[in-house]
Amino acid sequence: MLLNHGGLKRRSRLMNSIVCKFGGTSVADSEKIKEVVSIIRSDSRRKLVVVSAPGKRFKEDEKITDLLYKCHEEGSRGKPVSGVFSLVKERYNEISENLGIGSKLREILEEIEENIKSGATADYTASRGEFLCALLLAEYLGAEFVDAADIIKLNENGTVDKNTYNLIGERVEKDKSYVIPGFYGSTSDGEIKVFSRGGSDITGALVARGTNASLYENWTDVSGILTADPRVVQNPIPIDRVTYRELRELAYLGASVFHEEAIFPVSEAGIPINIRNTNYPDHPGTTIVKEREVSPFPFTGLAGKTGFSLFYIEKLLLNREEDFISRLFSILRENKVNPRYIQSGCDSLIVVLGTEEIKDRENNLLKALKERLKAEHIKKMGSVALLGAVGEGISKKPEITSRLLNALVDSGLSVSLVEQGSSENSILFGVKEEDYEKSLKALYKVLA
Amino acid sequence: MLLNHGGLKRRSRLMNSIVCKFGGTSVADSEKIKEVVSIIRSDSRRKLVVVSAPGKRFKEDEKITDLLYKCHEEGSRGKPVSGVFSLVKERYNEISENLGIGSKLREILEEIEENIKSGATADYTASRGEFLCALLLAEYLGAEFVDAADIIKLNENGTVDKNTYNLIGERVEKDKSYVIPGFYGSTSDGEIKVFSRGGSDITGALVARGTNASLYENWTDVSGILTADPRVVQNPIPIDRVTYRELRELAYLGASVFHEEAIFPVSEAGIPINIRNTNYPDHPGTTIVKEREVSPFPFTGLAGKTGFSLFYIEKLLLNREEDFISRLFSILRENKVNPRYIQSGCDSLIVVLGTEEIKDRENNLLKALKERLKAEHIKKMGSVALLGAVGEGISKKPEITSRLLNALVDSGLSVSLVEQGSSENSILFGVKEEDYEKSLKALYKVLA
Repeated sequence: MLLNHGGLKRRSRLMNSIVCKFGGTSVADSEKIKEVVSIIRSDSRRKLVVVSAPGKRFKEDEKITDLLYKCHEEGSRGKPVSGVFSLVKERYNEISENLGIGSKLREILEEIEENIKSGATADYTASRGEFLCALLLAEYLGAEFVDAADIIKLNENGTVDKNTYNLIGERVEKDKSYVIPGFYGSTSDGEIKVFSRGGSDITGALVARGTNASLYENWTDVSGILTADPRVVQNPIPIDRVTYRELRELAYLGASVFHEEAIFPVSEAGIPINIRNTNYPDHPGTTIVKEREVSPFPFTGLAGKTGFSLFYIEKLLLNREEDFISRLFSILRENKVNPRYIQSGCDSLIVVLGTEEIKDRENNLLKALKERLKAEHIKKMGSVALLGAVGEGISKKPEITSRLLNALVDSGLSVSLVEQGSSENSILFGVKEEDYEKSLKALYKVLA
Repeated sequence: MLLNHGGLKRRSRLMNSIVCKFGGTSVADSEKIKEVVSIIRSDSRRKLVVVSAPGKRFKEDEKITDLLYKCHEEGSRGKPVSGVFSLVKERYNEISENLGIGSKLREILEEIEENIKSGATADYTASRGEFLCALLLAEYLGAEFVDAADIIKLNENGTVDKNTYNLIGERVEKDKSYVIPGFYGSTSDGEIKVFSRGGSDITGALVARGTNASLYENWTDVSGILTADPRVVQNPIPIDRVTYRELRELAYLGASVFHEEAIFPVSEAGIPINIRNTNYPDHPGTTIVKEREVSPFPFTGLAGKTGFSLFYIEKLLLNREEDFISRLFSILRENKVNPRYIQSGCDSLIVVLGTEEIKDRENNLLKALKERLKAEHIKKMGSVALLGAVGEGISKKPEITSRLLNALVDSGLSVSLVEQGSSENSILFGVKEEDYEKSLKALYKVLA
């Protein structure tokens, strides 16, 4: 209790601070790091900095994290690691030389190489990218380096230990600046453990929550979250403000900007997230908030994904069989398949599964479904793409559903699924996989 | 095996016969019965007749079945039954006198009254309406009376015993005419057991199946199945041809023309059903078939019902909880609530329940859901009406969904639910309960 109280007290003191997390491309080389530092210095509230490992400097470049995983792989197969590790060293040497810092870099790099050679874990090896980057940035910035291993505690199953927030709150002091490596933490026995890729977003969120920051800035290489996939739609408008819920829906439906698991720590505490572009620091980016003003046309963004398989199950009066859906779910679970969507009616239902997920078990699954559900028809309806229109309260505006559906129909697209109602904040359409891009473009016209 | 074989042999002999079932209004009095007889005689294939008990002759009249249930109620409460039973007697006396038949009617009526007085079951008492009607019609028609108790065998749980088809097949002979009372059968120990109200439709279906008839005519007081509820839409067009599947969907969604359970026996055997109007015997009515030609605008009919409650359940990442929906269904089952529709997404789902069904247990149910699903939000979204557009393959025509949705939106209606995909043969809309009629009218304009 005392500890918790202490944590809370300290945290309240940092109310007016900003946690800034910089992604891999933002710290890819010394020039980028200079830009990062100028961003940090332009607002005195930016006291808590979380960094990824240096990313790609150009399209064919390799990310430090990828190089480190390669080192571990080579090492674990008994091969020499020096070759790949020298590429890692080169990158950090470039940064330290050009920034005129890193007097101890040489020996730290040697120690890491030694550890990898003596069988360090993949997690430890991969985490060194962020570790080194944070170390150099802290020195250049004149801020204190805090090792994530000391403040971010992970359980064996990868979830964040509850004590993490207290540890963070106790470690940082008011008016001081800190740089913290992203992507990893440590278990109770001190072992380094990493998050999934892109997990520095989570570190930033944990630090923001642990210090009760007023804002969590997530600096990346795009000017916020876009209203649609820029690989499909030309120059989609960025979203100005979006709620956590909308972001979750967009992410679930396929938009990839922000690590999903990074939303919880800050959304629980109501700390806004601001997605910013290191290359255009004056662009306001996208702010993610708990609540926002209701819009008369609540259509915030579009997202979509291919790679779904639609299964149609028909059985007379299936909805009178009390345990029909429970049995269906048991069969899916036994086959380690996670249903993405389900819609049931009186004599039939559809269930949407991930094509990749069922790839090797489709026959077994169909066999089990046929045998145990005793349905008249169980058929795979083919591969579909799912597209969702997201917006707070969008499902209360059927005129939007109507306009979106019209847009698809007018483009001659075959719509196998329409779902409005299961979420207050999204409307879902299923189309043929090959029609994905055409469908997204058609829907985008309604939004733009 | 022998028995089964015998049944099949006989049945094949009746391939070219028609089973005609006449509903209560078609046999309400002697004049009506004369019309029925003229219908039967106009086609020599009409050899198997199933009758309901006499229904209402005018709006304020009472149905024989209702009177008989009253007799049983009075008797079981120790009150005299003669008063109510005299009304029953009057009705049958009118028929027998005007048709010049029923020499034994008096003693049969006395025996029935005696049985009721000595504590006959409600099922026995109610079944006498059909029994007497069939007896009189058989005599007038010069056909053989077959007691349903001898050929329709019911299990204790009310389901039809498998041996029924064989019993029927063995009992009837080629080229002979029969009249069979609808609505009841008997259990293995000879006890009379009735179907649910309107169950004479089932008797007709069982006889059609048991004799392998070429057609099952269902004579009633409407010219077939209408494209929409005539109480809401003015003069809706009757449906010419409809498949069993479409009929099932229409019935499930609220259309009430034909007893749901009466579809299975004939649909399994592919025997068409023809719904006809005794008052307009030349009208072709609606034919219900297994398959029909695919229509370019496959919109067969509309149906709808009020009385649904929509529950919205929101929980972050609920669809990653492998057993979330199974748990939801367990809770519903434990509370004896049968979910009508379910739609699930990533963080939320809706489940549609019958308002009447949850009336007395809504609080318990909500409490159980809240405690055991640990969801952020569980809310009742209010009372809704569900409307469905039905047609073979309608869900493959999103332009119809689009037109229907436009019709609702253009009428300023708030659509809380749109579901296209869960059934190949229907599209579902949820609207506010008070908007039911307005919505049905709006949708009907697309069809008409």
